[in-house]
Amino acid sequence: MAKELKELESRSVDYSQWYQDLVIKADLAENSAVRGCMVIKPYGYAIWEKIQRQLDDMFKETGHQNAYFPLFIPKSFLSREAEHVEGFAKECAVVTHHRLMKDPNGTGLVVDPDAKLEEELIVRPTSETIIWNTYKNWITSYRDLPILVNQWANVVRWEMRTRLFLRTTEFLWQEGHTAHATREEAEAEAQKMLEVYATFAEKFMAMPVIKGVKTATERFAGALDTYTIEAMMQDGKALQSGTSHFLGQNFAKAFDVTFVNKDNKQEYVWATSWGVSTRLMGALIMTHSDDNGLVLPPALAPFQVVIVPIYKNNEQLHAIDAKANQIMAKLKSLGISVKYDNTDNKKPGWKFAEYELKGVPVRLALGARDMENNTIEIARRDTLTKETRSIDGIESFIKDLLDEIQANIYKKALDYRNANIREVNSYEEFKVEIEKGGFLLCHWDGTPETEELVKNETKATIRCIPFEGDKTPGKCMVTGKPSARRVIFARAY
Amino acid sequence: MAKELKELESRSVDYSQWYQDLVIKADLAENSAVRGCMVIKPYGYAIWEKIQRQLDDMFKETGHQNAYFPLFIPKSFLSREAEHVEGFAKECAVVTHHRLMKDPNGTGLVVDPDAKLEEELIVRPTSETIIWNTYKNWITSYRDLPILVNQWANVVRWEMRTRLFLRTTEFLWQEGHTAHATREEAEAEAQKMLEVYATFAEKFMAMPVIKGVKTATERFAGALDTYTIEAMMQDGKALQSGTSHFLGQNFAKAFDVTFVNKDNKQEYVWATSWGVSTRLMGALIMTHSDDNGLVLPPALAPFQVVIVPIYKNNEQLHAIDAKANQIMAKLKSLGISVKYDNTDNKKPGWKFAEYELKGVPVRLALGARDMENNTIEIARRDTLTKETRSIDGIESFIKDLLDEIQANIYKKALDYRNANIREVNSYEEFKVEIEKGGFLLCHWDGTPETEELVKNETKATIRCIPFEGDKTPGKCMVTGKPSARRVIFARAY
Repeated sequence: MAKELKELESRSVDYSQWYQDLVIKADLAENSAVRGCMVIKPYGYAIWEKIQRQLDDMFKETGHQNAYFPLFIPKSFLSREAEHVEGFAKECAVVTHHRLMKDPNGTGLVVDPDAKLEEELIVRPTSETIIWNTYKNWITSYRDLPILVNQWANVVRWEMRTRLFLRTTEFLWQEGHTAHATREEAEAEAQKMLEVYATFAEKFMAMPVIKGVKTATERFAGALDTYTIEAMMQDGKALQSGTSHFLGQNFAKAFDVTFVNKDNKQEYVWATSWGVSTRLMGALIMTHSDDNGLVLPPALAPFQVVIVPIYKNNEQLHAIDAKANQIMAKLKSLGISVKYDNTDNKKPGWKFAEYELKGVPVRLALGARDMENNTIEIARRDTLTKETRSIDGIESFIKDLLDEIQANIYKKALDYRNANIREVNSYEEFKVEIEKGGFLLCHWDGTPETEELVKNETKATIRCIPFEGDKTPGKCMVTGKPSARRVIFARAY
Repeated sequence: MAKELKELESRSVDYSQWYQDLVIKADLAENSAVRGCMVIKPYGYAIWEKIQRQLDDMFKETGHQNAYFPLFIPKSFLSREAEHVEGFAKECAVVTHHRLMKDPNGTGLVVDPDAKLEEELIVRPTSETIIWNTYKNWITSYRDLPILVNQWANVVRWEMRTRLFLRTTEFLWQEGHTAHATREEAEAEAQKMLEVYATFAEKFMAMPVIKGVKTATERFAGALDTYTIEAMMQDGKALQSGTSHFLGQNFAKAFDVTFVNKDNKQEYVWATSWGVSTRLMGALIMTHSDDNGLVLPPALAPFQVVIVPIYKNNEQLHAIDAKANQIMAKLKSLGISVKYDNTDNKKPGWKFAEYELKGVPVRLALGARDMENNTIEIARRDTLTKETRSIDGIESFIKDLLDEIQANIYKKALDYRNANIREVNSYEEFKVEIEKGGFLLCHWDGTPETEELVKNETKATIRCIPFEGDKTPGKCMVTGKPSARRVIFARAY
């Protein structure tokens, strides 16, 4: 194993360090000179682009259009919606001036005191306020509805403790903001977009998720209901991977957005918002990867196949180059992305370790003996198994293999998750079980007080009230009061 | 003509008002609640997405990868490169605090004085500084070079006078930042990317451009050479549409980025940067549009064809719907994007005017008589001409027509531009001619003083020293001193 790989901490020793090592060593991202802000490196960004492209197609298929709203939000906008301000006004980047000048007492630059803004601007932590202030001018009648708009943007939340992809001061995301004539239509939209997220997570990220609704405590600030998809990482912790909010008429009331309905009456507009972010990169990494490095689902890998030549001299290399080009052309004709790495300054062993670290789903090796026998060595990243096969029909074999890998890593993640969901019936048992990780299905009396107590004592939160599964009533594990149904408790990222 | 269209100012009366009206009425963009920041509306953003997708493909074909760097730049970074600070530190958004709190004396929010940043952060006006600070850690040896990275991002420059798309405080752009082992390679890269921009402008935007190099006065702050593409708008003014900079070793020196070359010697890295922005939207609008509204090149239109049904009753509509669906399927199979507008609450005349205003290249109308005769009415947006044809083979007719429209609007713009390039030989003549607009080819003595004098007296600047064209020496039109060759003077956006 190459030296670089040895430096990757093992998951069982220190999961958190393993994650950090992997993000850095697989060239996905790194910390920048600006506290809490990351640099997303080309290999990491290529995965994010695949995520974006796929989600964007799914948004468009469901009737949404993209638009772009300002980065800055006037300070006063944030305090218009009473709950929203509590959630988002606390830690944010505040622009107070619009000019620098040479330091009159030194050599550097200082803020020009004459360039103070009349009203401070906040770098958007989320865009409900600026968008609903805009929608006010777009909506007069029910004929102007629905508005189905999404934006791909950067947002800033001043986080005290940051971790690459999982929690950064600046992150990239999409935020959908829709406006509707009826409550029913808005609720249906919020649920539809949660379905889109769940489909994307399972089909493309190969990551099983549980769909559900958040408790009042865990809701988005300003929402009447927050729907969520929750995934389980390999350390048994939950990662909230996407949320969709039914906002009721809260933002319409805060920004006075009304419309004339079919009965010719003035009414406030109904709203949703929904988003996923570069946090999905963290979810992707932690769902599938192992102590050898990243494991990428073929559907999101920047390149699905890598070909490495093994040769002793230039003559051999030229012959292998020609064969590799033939194979590449065949693979590309089936829509498979492939990289041929015939760079001369690295040994095959180094390349094998490198592409293992980078999670390339399939690695092909072509050597002198393969040339003689018309064979090729095929290595799977997910199972770390190898086999040698005839080159004839290799392209359709690999196409099927990529589908199999996609299905296999999904199944592996699903099995792990299912094996780590447990019913727990007493708070005593809960305190023991929560230390083992996983999702605990427990009865809860529905009060924020009990939720708070559990959180303070065990660091576990209610991840969601799942849409599916057992809906039998019972008694709260903490208070013994009536419980409508079991909910999911877990420690979370 | 519909009421909305009448409200569009005519170009001959007030070109600037016409532009403003058109951007608003064609639903491209609008001003936001934040001074100088625009909202890009879905129809405008759909054009920008086409621009992005095409450019992104071209960047990738030329070996570039995307990445993402922080929105914020530490204040001290800006003063590291001596010229850069002059150009970019003046008008910028300065983040000084990271928290708001409830106003102790009122109901709103105030900046929390305890949350003052140790060092102020600048919202990026351009990213050379933060990127070269990052590259320092990526580059050790010539084997790490070249780095060919691009980023799609928002940037902020605190503009005093703003105009939608042309000059806004926040705008969207791409910025390429490359690092090379040799001066020659960096210079070749800067020129290659100018070629990419020129090809994109001419082939996709149908906008002829003149390639050239900027004078020292007009160079990017920190560059050794700035290459530019300059387009002529319909009022005869120039619009700088894309620039590519050869940065020499300036940023490598400022951020101490060195590498070990093949001769095992330490050397500073060579750099380029290059960018185009949402300003291209302004260029696109002003190159082709007319007093009836937008004229879009088929290559960038959100939808290339619109079908409008003309009917008296539901029975007719159902028959037309069926026929329209057949036509749409045929068009889509040829890769043509098409919208069928059978909404019931607008008259055909209103729809005709609306799609004319929005610049849809081809409009098809299907009426009861067409159904009888198996015909369809085809209207071209560029020439405003109509004809009725058999539906048989309509798809290949339209495919050819779209190509013809793309070529025709390019030719029209090229003819206009060529008719408005004039040689001028005396400064007296210049002062008269510049009032008529257009590009003036004049001899210039090569000094910034003469450039400055001309600018102060006539508002004209040297747009570029063109790569192509007459290279005969002569005498400066102002000073009579020797001139190496004619350069292009114009008033500019």
